[in-house]
Amino acid sequence: MLFLVGLGLGTEKDITLRGLEAIQSSSLILLESYTSLIGCIDWSESSYSTSLADSRSMKSLDTQSGFVKALERLSAQYGGKSIRIASRWEIESSNENAGFLHVAKKENVALLVVGDPLFATTHTDLLVRCKRASIAYQVIHNASIMNAVGSTGISMYAFGPSISVPFFTENWRPYSFYEKLEKNLVNKEQHTLLLLDIKVKEPTEEELACGRVENPKSWIPPSFMSIRVAIEQLFEAESVIKRGVVSSSTLAVGIARAGHSSQLIASGTLTQLRDYGDAWGAPLHALVIPATSQLHELEWDMIRSFSI
Amino acid sequence: MLFLVGLGLGTEKDITLRGLEAIQSSSLILLESYTSLIGCIDWSESSYSTSLADSRSMKSLDTQSGFVKALERLSAQYGGKSIRIASRWEIESSNENAGFLHVAKKENVALLVVGDPLFATTHTDLLVRCKRASIAYQVIHNASIMNAVGSTGISMYAFGPSISVPFFTENWRPYSFYEKLEKNLVNKEQHTLLLLDIKVKEPTEEELACGRVENPKSWIPPSFMSIRVAIEQLFEAESVIKRGVVSSSTLAVGIARAGHSSQLIASGTLTQLRDYGDAWGAPLHALVIPATSQLHELEWDMIRSFSI
Repeated sequence: MLFLVGLGLGTEKDITLRGLEAIQSSSLILLESYTSLIGCIDWSESSYSTSLADSRSMKSLDTQSGFVKALERLSAQYGGKSIRIASRWEIESSNENAGFLHVAKKENVALLVVGDPLFATTHTDLLVRCKRASIAYQVIHNASIMNAVGSTGISMYAFGPSISVPFFTENWRPYSFYEKLEKNLVNKEQHTLLLLDIKVKEPTEEELACGRVENPKSWIPPSFMSIRVAIEQLFEAESVIKRGVVSSSTLAVGIARAGHSSQLIASGTLTQLRDYGDAWGAPLHALVIPATSQLHELEWDMIRSFSI
Repeated sequence: MLFLVGLGLGTEKDITLRGLEAIQSSSLILLESYTSLIGCIDWSESSYSTSLADSRSMKSLDTQSGFVKALERLSAQYGGKSIRIASRWEIESSNENAGFLHVAKKENVALLVVGDPLFATTHTDLLVRCKRASIAYQVIHNASIMNAVGSTGISMYAFGPSISVPFFTENWRPYSFYEKLEKNLVNKEQHTLLLLDIKVKEPTEEELACGRVENPKSWIPPSFMSIRVAIEQLFEAESVIKRGVVSSSTLAVGIARAGHSSQLIASGTLTQLRDYGDAWGAPLHALVIPATSQLHELEWDMIRSFSI
């Protein structure tokens, strides 16, 4: 049996009792490394950057003491069970004849995923492979960022598709997120959740160029896009495309560390939220741009209560 | 402190460790009655109906043995703490001078809500009242039906607003859900989650007419709209409005008991899903109508794997 276990929004206590039982019944426990442990890390013990440009000299997140301690805390919470970090490659390549899917044919295997395991379709492919090979699976859902957005007071009912904002690099500045926002906000009058890019244990471009996907030797340092950087990128896209999707006075709501006890929600214009800068604190950050025409009085009350 | 604690999708083991700690630290524990305990109930011990027309002779859900046992199981899971059922009215009327919000000024109070506490804006109003009266609160998120929909393989990214399908009565057959579906599916090419009506411990129309909102003497029997009834209502709306939003061959995915170990997902045409009838089993049911133009190959693979 393969258990796909959602860990919720990040602290080790956000697991459900059902998730805990699945872990305790498993002989192999893997933690998906892509977004792993962000919420459990004590950021005062770990270094990270909020834009790719600042990130050149850092070491990989999973070798930092904050990360290692978070993993130990997670393991202790789960009854001392040993947890192995799985690479994205390992998850994408496992099949019924090799890797953890092969193990799942005979024993219980738990794959831990931060948030909800099926928020995106990243892990759907895994379930399709299980079905084809007649491997039983169970999905143990948990809260994702979409649930935490409810804390802004904005109803989930009027959201359009979520949009990922990728880190700009010197030579790669894709503006498709701006066009998607236009579609949601202007054409469809729907609220938008902007998910800000993160880079955790991804091979450097050099490694990819050498074809070392499975076992790379160098990694991009841990980088988590801040609300400030996201808004700067939005403004840059606006200044180039000039279709008036956002302006300095566009209303937005920022969320730092969604679902944690240190969660910070603040609302204001995009300029105000950008200038809030370091006050947002440690990762993860997300941004909501509401379609103001769709907000009801109660939603306005709540948004105003978070004014900077 | 007021804790708004999400219980997840229904069994007593879907609570998070953080939610459990909040409950154990509270001197008053309330369970929101509107959607409460649906998932924990052993339906072989409780009677319910799947359409309002069938429901006339049943007793209120919270007096049935299946419900009482589920409440006992919940209480045992939480360390034997006593749990009081709160009416919708009680939750909506509590303020800083009376009711549980008044208690929350000095002691910890946990309000338990099935799913995620802020999936809809039902409880946002409560947070606005807390902020105005400077009562501290914490939201403990959990999985909602929106998370469980991920198990169909359809990405959350291309969903439009969710739509509630209300029970038709003899004299009240509102078709607005059909128009909302048209907006999502036809105009915006977005997937739609249809949330099917439930009636649990709501006063009868006679009670409402007499103004007995606070302490009514008779209740509407427990009724949970089935996928069959929802599709019949969709077909009726189509036959009256005739704008071709749905037809007998429209692709849909049904979900019964989302997130539970007895979860059932099946895909097919609306006619096939309607004719699946009693095979869907006990509540809750939900229905997804995907915008087929937006589905990728992987999503098709997964949907096909659930074919009736």
